[in-house]
Amino acid sequence: MLCLMSRAVNQLVDAGIVDDGDEKVDVRSLDGALDALVALVGDDLAAVNQLIVDNMHSPVALIPQLARYIVASGGKRLRPLLVLASARMCGHDGGRQLGLAAAVEFIHTATLLHDDVVDNSDLRRGKASANEVFGNKPSVLVGDFLFARAFQLMVRDGSLEVLDILSNASAVIAEGEVLQLAASNDTTTDEAVYLDVVRAKTAELFSAACRIGAVVAARPAEDRQAMADYGLNLGIAFQLVDDVLDYSAAQARLGKAVGDDFREGKITLPVVLAVALADEEERHFWRRCLEDLDQTPEDLDRALALMARHGTLDTAMARARDYGARATQAMLHFAPSPERQALLDIVQFCIGRDY
Amino acid sequence: MLCLMSRAVNQLVDAGIVDDGDEKVDVRSLDGALDALVALVGDDLAAVNQLIVDNMHSPVALIPQLARYIVASGGKRLRPLLVLASARMCGHDGGRQLGLAAAVEFIHTATLLHDDVVDNSDLRRGKASANEVFGNKPSVLVGDFLFARAFQLMVRDGSLEVLDILSNASAVIAEGEVLQLAASNDTTTDEAVYLDVVRAKTAELFSAACRIGAVVAARPAEDRQAMADYGLNLGIAFQLVDDVLDYSAAQARLGKAVGDDFREGKITLPVVLAVALADEEERHFWRRCLEDLDQTPEDLDRALALMARHGTLDTAMARARDYGARATQAMLHFAPSPERQALLDIVQFCIGRDY
Repeated sequence: MLCLMSRAVNQLVDAGIVDDGDEKVDVRSLDGALDALVALVGDDLAAVNQLIVDNMHSPVALIPQLARYIVASGGKRLRPLLVLASARMCGHDGGRQLGLAAAVEFIHTATLLHDDVVDNSDLRRGKASANEVFGNKPSVLVGDFLFARAFQLMVRDGSLEVLDILSNASAVIAEGEVLQLAASNDTTTDEAVYLDVVRAKTAELFSAACRIGAVVAARPAEDRQAMADYGLNLGIAFQLVDDVLDYSAAQARLGKAVGDDFREGKITLPVVLAVALADEEERHFWRRCLEDLDQTPEDLDRALALMARHGTLDTAMARARDYGARATQAMLHFAPSPERQALLDIVQFCIGRDY
Repeated sequence: MLCLMSRAVNQLVDAGIVDDGDEKVDVRSLDGALDALVALVGDDLAAVNQLIVDNMHSPVALIPQLARYIVASGGKRLRPLLVLASARMCGHDGGRQLGLAAAVEFIHTATLLHDDVVDNSDLRRGKASANEVFGNKPSVLVGDFLFARAFQLMVRDGSLEVLDILSNASAVIAEGEVLQLAASNDTTTDEAVYLDVVRAKTAELFSAACRIGAVVAARPAEDRQAMADYGLNLGIAFQLVDDVLDYSAAQARLGKAVGDDFREGKITLPVVLAVALADEEERHFWRRCLEDLDQTPEDLDRALALMARHGTLDTAMARARDYGARATQAMLHFAPSPERQALLDIVQFCIGRDY
C-alpha cells in the first residue's frame, strides 16, 4: 500500500474547487496544494534536499548510485514537507527540522526499496523501480543503509524523544508490512485488518513527521498529540483515496491506468467491502481473480460493476472523508496561520477528489 | 561473510592446548572458551535471552514465529557475550548491559536475515535458513522489524553515545554488505577490498559490542578505545580463520564440509592470495570456477593444490595471528581479571586452530 502513496501523489494532478468551511480554496491539484506548502517552507526544503544528497554519500559507489536513483526519482517530499510545515507552524525557528525531515525521507525511501522487492514491483513513479534496474540484492542492502543513515541523522540531532518517535514508527511500519504480506491475496481480509495495515504502513510515518515538528518547537503535549492526530488521519485518508482511485472512472477518463491493484491481487478497501456484500457466486469470482490471480481481460469490468452495484467506491470515499474530517478537526486545535491553511488545504484536496 | 561466522562457531568444536604467554590454557573448543565467559556472566546471559524473547513479541504472528526461528536457532550469542563481558570487566554493576546486548543481537540477526536473502542461502547453522522456510519476503520485513526493535531498545536505555555507536556500526555493516556484493564473483578483488569487507561486515559489530561495555561502565576514552580495538581485531581474526577453515584439511579429516565458499564462488582471502600469485593459466582456472561458476567435482582439489603450492592458507592464518596479536595487545591495556582472561582465551583459541 505504501508504494501506492507516491503514485497517488503523481496521479492526483487535477482537482476542482473544494469547500473549506469558511472560504473557497482553489486547489487545482495536489501539486498545487503542495506548492502552497513549498512556498511557505521553500528555503527549508532546498536545505533538506541538499542534506539528502550529502547523506547518501558513501565510498561504496553503488550506494549513492542506487540511492540517488530512488531519492531523486520524482518523489514529492510529502513527509519532509509535513515536518517542515509542522515545525514552522509550531514556531520552531532553529534548524533542527532540516536533518529530521531528511531522516524521515530516508526511512520512507528505505521502506519503498524493500516494498518494491517484496512486491516484485517493476515500476515506481512511472519509471523502472530500483530493484528492476539494480536488482533485488542491492535494493535490500541500500535500504538497510538508508535506514541506518536515518538514525545517524537523528543521533546528530540529539533528541531522545525524536528517536523514540521514529524508532517506534519504524517498528510499526515493519509490522504493517508483514501484516499486509500475511493478508495478501486473501479475500477474507476484513476492514479492520485493512485499516490496521494502512495505519501502520502509511499513516504512522505521516503522524511521526507531523509530531516531530511540534517536538522540535517544544510545544506542550496536547499540541504534539494534535499534530500527530492530524498526520495519522491525513495518512489514512490519503491511502483510502489512493485505493479508490485505482478503480476510478475519472482516472480512466483521463487515460490513466485503472485496475493495477486488481491485476496484482491487492486487497484494498473497495474489494474488502465488495466481498463483504458478495453472494456465493461473487465470492467465487473475487477468489478466482485475487487469490488465484486467474483473470481474463473482462474480469476488471466485472469487478467494477460489482463495486458499483454494492457502492463500495462511494463507501470507501465516505470513510476517507471521515478520516479527513478528523485530520481537519485536529488541525483546528491550532491558531490560524498560513501553514495551518496549507495543511488544511491538503486534507480538503485529498478528500474532495472526483473519482 | 558474516553468515559464515556462526557456522564457524559451530564448526570450531575441537582444539588443543594453546600457549597464552605466561600460562597454558586448555581451550578444548570455542564452545569451551565461550563456556568460560558464560560461567562469568551466566545470569546476565539468561536475562538477555529473556529480553530477546520478550522483544520479539508482536501482534502480527508471523514476526515472532520467524524471529524465534532464527534467534533461537543455535546462535552462540557471541556478540551479546562480548557486551556482557566487557561491561563486567569494566566495572558496570547496573543492568544497562542487558538491553544493549539484546539490541546488538537484534542488529546481528537482522543482518543475518537480509544476508541469507541476498546470498540465496538455504542453510544457516546447519538447518534450513529462515528465507528457505518462510520465504524471502518475510525475511526482509522481519529483518527490518528487528532492526527497528534494536533502536527501540537503545532509546529505552537512553544513551546517545550508544545510539551513535550502533547507528554508525549499522551504516558501516550495510556499506560492507554492498561492497561485498559489488566484489562478489570478482577474482580481481584485492586483499585491501577483502579486508574492508571483513572489517565492515563482521568486525565493526564486534568492536561496537565491546566498546558499549566500556561506555555503560563510564570508562575513560582510552579504555573505550582499547575495548573497541580488541573487538575489531578479534572480529577480523575470526573471519579470516573462518575463511581458511572452509578449505581446511583438518575440517576434512573430521568429516566436515570443505569448499562451500568455493562452490558458491565466494572471494575469500585464500583465493585472493592465490589469484595474486597465479600464472595466466591459473587465473583462467579461478575465473572459470569463481566468476563463471563453471566447476567440475575435481576443481576443488585443484584449488586446494594451488593454495598449497602458493601457501595461501598459511599466509591467511599468519594474517589472522597478526590481528589476534593486536586484539591481545589491546586487551592487555586492562588489569588482569577473570573476564580479561576469558576474552584473551577466545583470541588464543581462534588463532591457535589446526587447519
